[in-house]
Amino acid sequence: MPSTSLCQDEACPPYSLMDDYSEGAHPQILEALLRTNSTQQVSYGNDDYSNQARQLIRQRINCTEDEADIFFVPSGTSANLISIASCLRPYEAVITLDSGHIACKEAGAIEATGHKLVLVPAVDGKMTPTNLRKAIQQNQFFPHMAKPRLLYISNASETGTVYTKREMSTLSALCKEMNLLLLVDGARIGTALCSKKNDMALRDIFEFADIFWIGGTKAGALMGEAIVVKKALAEGFVFHLKQHGALLAKGRILGVQFMELFRDDLFFALATHANAMSEKISANFETLGYELAAETETNQVFVILPQRLIRTLQERFRFYTWEHLDDGRVVVRIVTSWATDELQVDKFNAAVLQWTVANKDVSIDQERCI
Amino acid sequence: MPSTSLCQDEACPPYSLMDDYSEGAHPQILEALLRTNSTQQVSYGNDDYSNQARQLIRQRINCTEDEADIFFVPSGTSANLISIASCLRPYEAVITLDSGHIACKEAGAIEATGHKLVLVPAVDGKMTPTNLRKAIQQNQFFPHMAKPRLLYISNASETGTVYTKREMSTLSALCKEMNLLLLVDGARIGTALCSKKNDMALRDIFEFADIFWIGGTKAGALMGEAIVVKKALAEGFVFHLKQHGALLAKGRILGVQFMELFRDDLFFALATHANAMSEKISANFETLGYELAAETETNQVFVILPQRLIRTLQERFRFYTWEHLDDGRVVVRIVTSWATDELQVDKFNAAVLQWTVANKDVSIDQERCI
Amino acid sequence: MPSTSLCQDEACPPYSLMDDYSEGAHPQILEALLRTNSTQQVSYGNDDYSNQARQLIRQRINCTEDEADIFFVPSGTSANLISIASCLRPYEAVITLDSGHIACKEAGAIEATGHKLVLVPAVDGKMTPTNLRKAIQQNQFFPHMAKPRLLYISNASETGTVYTKREMSTLSALCKEMNLLLLVDGARIGTALCSKKNDMALRDIFEFADIFWIGGTKAGALMGEAIVVKKALAEGFVFHLKQHGALLAKGRILGVQFMELFRDDLFFALATHANAMSEKISANFETLGYELAAETETNQVFVILPQRLIRTLQERFRFYTWEHLDDGRVVVRIVTSWATDELQVDKFNAAVLQWTVANKDVSIDQERCI
Amino acid sequence: MPSTSLCQDEACPPYSLMDDYSEGAHPQILEALLRTNSTQQVSYGNDDYSNQARQLIRQRINCTEDEADIFFVPSGTSANLISIASCLRPYEAVITLDSGHIACKEAGAIEATGHKLVLVPAVDGKMTPTNLRKAIQQNQFFPHMAKPRLLYISNASETGTVYTKREMSTLSALCKEMNLLLLVDGARIGTALCSKKNDMALRDIFEFADIFWIGGTKAGALMGEAIVVKKALAEGFVFHLKQHGALLAKGRILGVQFMELFRDDLFFALATHANAMSEKISANFETLGYELAAETETNQVFVILPQRLIRTLQERFRFYTWEHLDDGRVVVRIVTSWATDELQVDKFNAAVLQWTVANKDVSIDQERCI
Repeated sequence: MPSTSLCQDEACPPYSLMDDYSEGAHPQILEALLRTNSTQQVSYGNDDYSNQARQLIRQRINCTEDEADIFFVPSGTSANLISIASCLRPYEAVITLDSGHIACKEAGAIEATGHKLVLVPAVDGKMTPTNLRKAIQQNQFFPHMAKPRLLYISNASETGTVYTKREMSTLSALCKEMNLLLLVDGARIGTALCSKKNDMALRDIFEFADIFWIGGTKAGALMGEAIVVKKALAEGFVFHLKQHGALLAKGRILGVQFMELFRDDLFFALATHANAMSEKISANFETLGYELAAETETNQVFVILPQRLIRTLQERFRFYTWEHLDDGRVVVRIVTSWATDELQVDKFNAAVLQWTVANKDVSIDQERCI
Repeated sequence: MPSTSLCQDEACPPYSLMDDYSEGAHPQILEALLRTNSTQQVSYGNDDYSNQARQLIRQRINCTEDEADIFFVPSGTSANLISIASCLRPYEAVITLDSGHIACKEAGAIEATGHKLVLVPAVDGKMTPTNLRKAIQQNQFFPHMAKPRLLYISNASETGTVYTKREMSTLSALCKEMNLLLLVDGARIGTALCSKKNDMALRDIFEFADIFWIGGTKAGALMGEAIVVKKALAEGFVFHLKQHGALLAKGRILGVQFMELFRDDLFFALATHANAMSEKISANFETLGYELAAETETNQVFVILPQRLIRTLQERFRFYTWEHLDDGRVVVRIVTSWATDELQVDKFNAAVLQWTVANKDVSIDQERCI
Repeated sequence: MPSTSLCQDEACPPYSLMDDYSEGAHPQILEALLRTNSTQQVSYGNDDYSNQARQLIRQRINCTEDEADIFFVPSGTSANLISIASCLRPYEAVITLDSGHIACKEAGAIEATGHKLVLVPAVDGKMTPTNLRKAIQQNQFFPHMAKPRLLYISNASETGTVYTKREMSTLSALCKEMNLLLLVDGARIGTALCSKKNDMALRDIFEFADIFWIGGTKAGALMGEAIVVKKALAEGFVFHLKQHGALLAKGRILGVQFMELFRDDLFFALATHANAMSEKISANFETLGYELAAETETNQVFVILPQRLIRTLQERFRFYTWEHLDDGRVVVRIVTSWATDELQVDKFNAAVLQWTVANKDVSIDQERCI
Repeated sequence: MPSTSLCQDEACPPYSLMDDYSEGAHPQILEALLRTNSTQQVSYGNDDYSNQARQLIRQRINCTEDEADIFFVPSGTSANLISIASCLRPYEAVITLDSGHIACKEAGAIEATGHKLVLVPAVDGKMTPTNLRKAIQQNQFFPHMAKPRLLYISNASETGTVYTKREMSTLSALCKEMNLLLLVDGARIGTALCSKKNDMALRDIFEFADIFWIGGTKAGALMGEAIVVKKALAEGFVFHLKQHGALLAKGRILGVQFMELFRDDLFFALATHANAMSEKISANFETLGYELAAETETNQVFVILPQRLIRTLQERFRFYTWEHLDDGRVVVRIVTSWATDELQVDKFNAAVLQWTVANKDVSIDQERCI
């Protein structure tokens, strides 16, 4: 099995810019697992490493044990379904963007716990106060409608944009006004907080949200997410973990990873790298006149490309085609990560440039690409 | 954090014989994770390693791709709840021993998927044809009773005993006769198959069961279980994984571990060690005249001890007190694993011997220990 | 408590045109309950009356016992949630109009059984092949998306329109092509089949659908709906009834009512009356120049009125204001039923005429009402 | 269809003593439905009749609107599943007798809402403080076990026995001590409160329980149960009704029936008749030397009979054979109701006497019947 980093010639498999979970874990994390491997630990999340990880995360948030409990789970879907199931009564519904991860990428996991999703259109990938208010107004015919009780948002959003402090503060205040809980999906919270556009600290998110989670899977861990639950909602939370198969016997392996991510600034350093790589790719596209389908604020680039360029790039790179536009152009998604090799980014950009120059007459100066 | 293996003096923390998941993973597994870490892989279980692991497991079972699909999940509770939810209709019930793991150690995970459990008393920790038949007969008042549709058993059982080929064959035939599916929980299937009492191969279990799973968590992996699903029941199974948060983005980490466990005979070698250690402990107890609460057939020892001996042992070892008998004696559970240090086992046995000799008059020759 | 029919003066409470369930049952139905009251019957739906009702309904459909089973439940929500829960696996989703009853009037009852709803925009209150096909195409990213498996439609639709034979035939064929089951909610199937626009017989609906139900609650019964389930899906259905509290001990009271509705043509006679009343109201509005928000094809009139007219009508009649348009006008819903008093309809129409004449200059000849 | 009351000859179908729901409704109830039929009423339980019924029930309980809300549902299974689903969090379990109605007669309805049942052995058909305490102690291994949170009992019990005030008071206090809610299933609460052994008023049950329900189906109504919910648990309860299909559009038909049952003392008069009939049957059996399998305290008689007597009685009467004892004798269940014809009871008793006398030598004086 050839390591991509050793790949020097044309026989290499295409380099993946598909997602931020194509590689294993950051080496430091594997080393931490090795280093701690032989100690005997208490099971099911009560080990020393999990406790240290909790303490480190609380320090980063700047909150006390009395303010929040922290739970580790193996996947983002687990984090979302457990968080939601833990704080809703059976007839209560979740407000989410129609592009929300829970709405279209989790196989009905939330509904499988019995709860309705109320879908709201996104603006720049984000929930707006206007759309939220409207959704609430349209869902008041009780008891014939499920009762909206929780707002679910993601930061970074599904299209890679980030919430400003002002935006999230406004949503949070609106939630309190309308008796909604606020859950922030942080699968990519690292890149959000390291975005140039970001003006929030973890403490801000903690204050705005009732529950939020810090994604490890997409941030350099083997797997794992840390759910931060405000004390008022934390009672009994661990039962939900167990009931949904998310309470690992060797909870230590989640603890060790988050301990390592938050011991120094590894978590943020890795996110910063991911953002820098996507910024480089995005800037190159913009310089060459391509239209972005969403602002590149974190580690995802959504760009509208002509199909011929896509085919050329696919010879050496892998990425998702996201949407086929009516005019024949295609939105592609390019994702960078903590592991993205800058050399490959440079090659990618060069390939875009080369094709663009060669096809200058037919593409760049025309409104409609081919 | 001191490694237990370096601990030579009295300041050491007590050595844990609590369970088979107190340590991390077997070193070979961690090395495999390191070795494969930098390759780029397809996500969600379609990576090369998972595919290789599937092939290796199929070779061990001696079955083809047309006969069974294999899915990897992070935990035993996931394995059970997903297996059951995937093959039952909403009104169908599960038959289980009253001591079954799903009945009393998974926080109602099965009921949370909507299914009733019908409890049957265990004999030597196992389901018997007589008790199964009786349970079916008592649950026929339809449609007022949920319809029994699946028999859940564990091998090794909750008390560490194993099913013989004849026993499992009989249960399997009975299931077919009564239109029941058979699910075998294999959290400790490694130690079961390596038990001196075992006369089954993986192929036998595959033939007897409709779904069974091979436990990695208690067998030396960081975490992970491999669910083997007969083809007739495999359609759509992967949706269940996703819906319950058990489809890891980096499915590779489960694939790599099972690849390593089944590449050579590591899986069985580790189970053999675990069994040998418990046999040593069990034999010592029997030699010294203590009564076992269950036959020691795998890596768990259930022994009835006087409370004073327990207190003495607890100064240097950790283990569960399992049940308080009416006569004042206590059943304790001692669990060994792939990681159990034989030196510690020898120390444990010596401590039992020492106390027994010192208290000879009051304990060994009396029916009732103090 | 004054009977509305005796009410002659201004002291009367406003006459309700709110819905089709404001009164009790048609007198013939009550008489049938009285007539059969003292016989002893087998419980839970196996009584003589339920069996006779089944036979009568089958005769009306022109189907045999081998083709379909029929089950009676107390409410429309029961009918929908049981029908859906009975034929979907946990990861399968329902396609419905965004205005579908299960989507916005049943408090999340379908999601409470674990299933996701995929919402599709309505055209004239109905599902179109184009929109259905598009929804299926957008929900194919498996296993990350729940798998669409059942199309839910209502006839009459939520806005009172009806499907033509051609329309339903096309949808049915499309469902077969795309491996979808088809469920037809028939809460108002009586008025649909008696609509002037209708060109289907019960047999057609039976052939097009996998499951459909015949509404009694809105058709003159005290309560009750008859679910017609194609044989292939009928096995175990009765367990679902029991499990959801819809299997009445005295199933006879549902049987008697449907026996009476289908003994002669009472069911259709009552629906015909309801339709005639709404047609009268609708025609009056159109004659006077008011715009309908939906075609009046059954017993619901959706009409756009100026607020002043609404206030005037509300002094003597009760009905729902359905939607506030941006231009200040309001959509109101007027519902007639088997019980609607034609004298009251005449008074209603007269009141509309009177106000319109008096306000002629400001309303009729202007595009925008006040 | 011949009315049983007119049946004078041998061609009559056997008289049913199967259950207390073989007939329709008490004539007064049907008359009330007729009398109120034509008024227009607000839907979904907010009609005048439901409000009057609530007031009458509150008067009987001697409680205020501030103390309890009352909801009407169509069936006992609905009442149980909604009550339980409304007040438990997903990981919380229900304690019930192993003979409890929810445990073995409701097709897994409670588990279908996600909750585990913890089964406790019955003593005289009832929960005892000792058994309750033991069950709680054995279910404390958290979070691996579901958390017991609600005690479900029935009065009258499944075997027709009743709780004394002292017994229920003790259980209620124990629940408070152990942080359990108490739900009393009152499917046969009428006969319980009219039992000669009863020393409780409705007010007592209201005080002891958090939720209890008053059964109409088995007490002379067409169908319907009234759930009395203490104010602290009532918020959002109506959503549960809707979500589970139990909120009837014509809620009036439940309201009218309970209004009639509680306007005067009809509810209690009917229960008193039912009890008198079973007492007569039970006394005859005892006089003739037959052994009761349970004390006859309400409207159910459980008696151990020789198979030959059973066959003789079955020629003219229908009843359940409940259990086959190892010695060849059989427990039969005979149920009387508000509708039981005393003439038929006399015939039944005469038939028992006649057979007994004729078979005196072989049966009465022998310990073991044939």
